Amino acid sequence: MSKDILVVGSVALDTVKTPFGEVEEALGGSAVYFSLAASFFTKIKLVAVVGEDFPDRHAKLLESRGIDLRGLEKIPGKTFRWKGEYSYNLNEAKTLETQLNVFENFQPHLPEDYKNTGFIFLANIDPQLQKRVLEQVKKPSLVVCDTMNYWIENKPEQLRKTLKKVDILVINEAETRQFSSEVNLVKAARKILSLGPRAILVKRGEYGALCFTKNSIFSAPGYPLEFVYDPTGAGDSFAGGFLGYLAKMGNLSERNIRRAIIFGSVMASFDVEDFSIQRFKTLTLTEIEQRFGAFKDLTHFESL
Amino acid sequence: MSKDILVVGSVALDTVKTPFGEVEEALGGSAVYFSLAASFFTKIKLVAVVGEDFPDRHAKLLESRGIDLRGLEKIPGKTFRWKGEYSYNLNEAKTLETQLNVFENFQPHLPEDYKNTGFIFLANIDPQLQKRVLEQVKKPSLVVCDTMNYWIENKPEQLRKTLKKVDILVINEAETRQFSSEVNLVKAARKILSLGPRAILVKRGEYGALCFTKNSIFSAPGYPLEFVYDPTGAGDSFAGGFLGYLAKMGNLSERNIRRAIIFGSVMASFDVEDFSIQRFKTLTLTEIEQRFGAFKDLTHFESL
Repeated sequence: MSKDILVVGSVALDTVKTPFGEVEEALGGSAVYFSLAASFFTKIKLVAVVGEDFPDRHAKLLESRGIDLRGLEKIPGKTFRWKGEYSYNLNEAKTLETQLNVFENFQPHLPEDYKNTGFIFLANIDPQLQKRVLEQVKKPSLVVCDTMNYWIENKPEQLRKTLKKVDILVINEAETRQFSSEVNLVKAARKILSLGPRAILVKRGEYGALCFTKNSIFSAPGYPLEFVYDPTGAGDSFAGGFLGYLAKMGNLSERNIRRAIIFGSVMASFDVEDFSIQRFKTLTLTEIEQRFGAFKDLTHFESL
Repeated sequence: MSKDILVVGSVALDTVKTPFGEVEEALGGSAVYFSLAASFFTKIKLVAVVGEDFPDRHAKLLESRGIDLRGLEKIPGKTFRWKGEYSYNLNEAKTLETQLNVFENFQPHLPEDYKNTGFIFLANIDPQLQKRVLEQVKKPSLVVCDTMNYWIENKPEQLRKTLKKVDILVINEAETRQFSSEVNLVKAARKILSLGPRAILVKRGEYGALCFTKNSIFSAPGYPLEFVYDPTGAGDSFAGGFLGYLAKMGNLSERNIRRAIIFGSVMASFDVEDFSIQRFKTLTLTEIEQRFGAFKDLTHFESL
């Protein structure tokens, strides 16, 4: 069975300001962060759309990490742009401007040989499009899906339908409560599990992540960093590390799932250390494994 | 060396309302929560003050857990009262009323044989009083101290002086940032470490706790509970489980400190399961050890 991952999501040009600096029209988008993070573990096939203004150097960078861009359509018009700002606590982005541009009418087209991919990541796009992707692929081993408050508010029914075909939902803490109309996180997760997914990965920013299944809960901490420059893409980098490791290992044992969540946390912790996708340009597998070890040191205590 | 703990703090009658119910003039106060939690591990000597209206049944309850009340003064006047309310998210108490009463002029008087106690917990009282307690005790093995925003704002210099004599500071996350004037938690903890303490335990409510020393960071999760009725006293119960276990073990190895933080988290997780100190009335050592095991299941992942 193929260990490749198919990712469908956005490719964007981000203008981001944080208390520590700013970047203009830097490479971003959910599919980009996911792919770069996952590319350290396995081979990625990317499906997204860009406009004619998409800089060639960005495509080259992605290809240099072995990412297959045959599914990246370039069509007339401008690339999706997002402009955002973070204040000192860095927990929440304030969106200053969104230009959907070519992303507005995005229809994911899968090259024929993408349809046999074993692992699927549906980044945060319209749940109807997510479902349409799943109708094109043949018996994937694992489908992981992200979403956001916008779809929860505007397309809750479509989201529920998509979730019936999804194995693992990645969602942030506030959205978990919002989607379930339940303040208590354990109850909220249980409600969402009843909609179909086998597991829910709740992202909690600097506080880490919680993974809920019917029978277990796993808690992963955030990595305490002294310097955080730009949180953009942390959630998608988390998903990339998570699914990248799982795909590489092939088998979905509890052991692998827990390690995968830590690898997700590792990739998110690297992502925020620099603006845009800069940190992934120099990152090495040795650094990734060292930080995995640091997560072990951070959380380990002896049983009684 | 004595494994007893001396605690100096408040004994109160709390009126608390949460979305799940309310209690009137229930037993509360920092020294009470701390003592009850710690009493599952070692012997506690309590120093505090109450008024003539303090119900005898409360004293009997504390004594039934082996807590030494010779240091609990009863003086003319009314007992300290606190009235607070929590909204659905349960993260922050809204204080509706504080009647200091006899607590206003509290002067801790240590019975002579208390002065040789090996382990000291200075609950959240005026840092000048905390320092005065330390001037009365003889060579304790470990001094743990709590504080709050009120003292950070109003007596920062006195707090700094007290911290020179303190081994471990227990403080919540917002107060860590406030006291250090530093948003980044790693930098904030480092600043406070430079004031004297060997370790800082940062309480993060439902997100758990972080322990910072000069050379290491340990992250303990909050326990994901389906039912949380009343968060009052969680921080002091955490401190009680933490110092209780350390005192019982006697030796301050990294292994014991990490386990102690988990025992602190265990006791906090029980505290919030019922109003006031109710949960501690029925709690057993077996339940405590089982939940310790549940924390292990919650956080464990295999090294590479």
